[in-house]
Amino acid sequence: MQDSGHIRLADLGEFGLIKRIHERFPAPDGVTGIGDDCAVLPQRDGLQTLVSTDMLIEGTHFLRGDISPYQLGWKSAAVNLSDIAAMGGRPTGTFLSLALPASTEAAWVDGFLRGYAEVSERFGAALLGGDTTASPDRICINVAVLGECPSGSARTRSAARPGDLVCVTGTLGDSAAGLRAILAGVERDADVQALIDRHYLPMPRVEEGLRLAAQAGVHAMMDISDGIGSDLEHILEASGVGAEVDPASLPLSAPLQRVCTRQGWDAAELAVCGGEDYELLFTVDPEAEKALDVPHTVIGRILSGRGLRWLGDARSFSGFDHYRSV
Amino acid sequence: MQDSGHIRLADLGEFGLIKRIHERFPAPDGVTGIGDDCAVLPQRDGLQTLVSTDMLIEGTHFLRGDISPYQLGWKSAAVNLSDIAAMGGRPTGTFLSLALPASTEAAWVDGFLRGYAEVSERFGAALLGGDTTASPDRICINVAVLGECPSGSARTRSAARPGDLVCVTGTLGDSAAGLRAILAGVERDADVQALIDRHYLPMPRVEEGLRLAAQAGVHAMMDISDGIGSDLEHILEASGVGAEVDPASLPLSAPLQRVCTRQGWDAAELAVCGGEDYELLFTVDPEAEKALDVPHTVIGRILSGRGLRWLGDARSFSGFDHYRSV
Repeated sequence: MQDSGHIRLADLGEFGLIKRIHERFPAPDGVTGIGDDCAVLPQRDGLQTLVSTDMLIEGTHFLRGDISPYQLGWKSAAVNLSDIAAMGGRPTGTFLSLALPASTEAAWVDGFLRGYAEVSERFGAALLGGDTTASPDRICINVAVLGECPSGSARTRSAARPGDLVCVTGTLGDSAAGLRAILAGVERDADVQALIDRHYLPMPRVEEGLRLAAQAGVHAMMDISDGIGSDLEHILEASGVGAEVDPASLPLSAPLQRVCTRQGWDAAELAVCGGEDYELLFTVDPEAEKALDVPHTVIGRILSGRGLRWLGDARSFSGFDHYRSV
Repeated sequence: MQDSGHIRLADLGEFGLIKRIHERFPAPDGVTGIGDDCAVLPQRDGLQTLVSTDMLIEGTHFLRGDISPYQLGWKSAAVNLSDIAAMGGRPTGTFLSLALPASTEAAWVDGFLRGYAEVSERFGAALLGGDTTASPDRICINVAVLGECPSGSARTRSAARPGDLVCVTGTLGDSAAGLRAILAGVERDADVQALIDRHYLPMPRVEEGLRLAAQAGVHAMMDISDGIGSDLEHILEASGVGAEVDPASLPLSAPLQRVCTRQGWDAAELAVCGGEDYELLFTVDPEAEKALDVPHTVIGRILSGRGLRWLGDARSFSGFDHYRSV
């Protein structure tokens, strides 16, 4: 790819932009990728195709002055790869739609593609197509992702059973605390930077999802994007069950605890309501849980009734809604 | 679906919007559609999956005051279905990402979904998933479409051979003339309305694409979105061949000819440069062309050299570029 300097898209042109993307992402063997009307993918027996899509809008999901193009490219791909991980699948390819103002610097595009490629390649997902177009002002990004899994092994939200343990991978609330630190202009020491990195550079739990889906006792699974308060409700509703969760059991990182203490923030609230953790939330048979080879924390239990009950805390938590929150 | 009245998205909420979409588009048997992290699709032997995606941004692709929500919904699905038609495939499902200002009326969403559904169902494409999010101001739409075709039968842009005839289905320039009529505020008699309808309600040539792909003599194929001037260049470049085209042979509809005569517009220029025809452009062996059961017009011939030559006319035509045109 040639040096981008300060070429604007107005100079590069749409086909110049596509060529740039194409050079960066050659098609895998046996696949027709970028450059035709459609991508053509081989199919193999006993596998199912997984597809998901996520849109990111400047001013809603990110502010151009805050997030670097590399981080935005990473995050755009990562949140989609996370949807494949949430099913226990392996990502195979992505489709990127990019609407950019004509004044966008080509260097910005290169940075975006670098971040997009780095997380995509880490998990074996080729960029197989997309669309590029002009935007009058705001950057608008859409990614569609394809994945695969053995037929019948995809973990849905509707498979939780009474008696299951409710578990999460990793730690919760870091991303939400990172966002709060950005918005509040908190000084960026190492702890704060660690939280901000989790917000801008989320790591999709693809390997964890694959290992969990290989265990018969793992029932329902999803990724945490709106906050476990809201996301667990989706599992309960889809499965027709209830749950009790102990807020004291939520896994909190050391940086989160230190920053919350310093800033007077409520770590449990960030962990429950914050969202954008992109960790996996799953339910598992208690016997199978003992044998899991994926690091996780048990936070509650599935009940035969309905509704989500928070133990030992009278607060009621709620998740994130794009049209209700600001 | 309940009556939408004047509910705003701010009242409906994100999950209310998703529920609305979900009710309108139930998943087909055996498919996990809307409501989980991913759609899960069965695979069958001997078939290939086709995927494409297209983004439409308010202010770039449409003006909210001009296009009705029904038309916009139709067009958003149709331009994607057209990409599957362009490969000679059968559309199977779509994924809709929709970023809307919180002030959007639910009635607008219902109208959009009605148009989206009407053209999708006409061609057997289920809505299998998507994303809904808030936009600070402009409407932003992305559709990803999946299709299938027998393994090895997809028609790409790179298969044109010297000696092939260059053909198009339908008529060219109607959509561009319709857009010009809208922008110029031309009075909408029946002819003008017919052109505007072709602009707002393009008909993907799915059946034509399937029938053409069933003929071994049909080599390269694509749909006409940027204008045949620009689009044919893509086939020539991908196939490493040249072509000569006779502008006098371009198929022009009666309404287009009458409106151009009245308005003093150049019909050939609209047909070549206008774009958004969503007709099929294909190359075919001359012997096979005689046996085609799809109505079409021969407009030129593939040559062994390079470049596109316009016969009998010194004008040079060019296509559409999002970052260069206004």
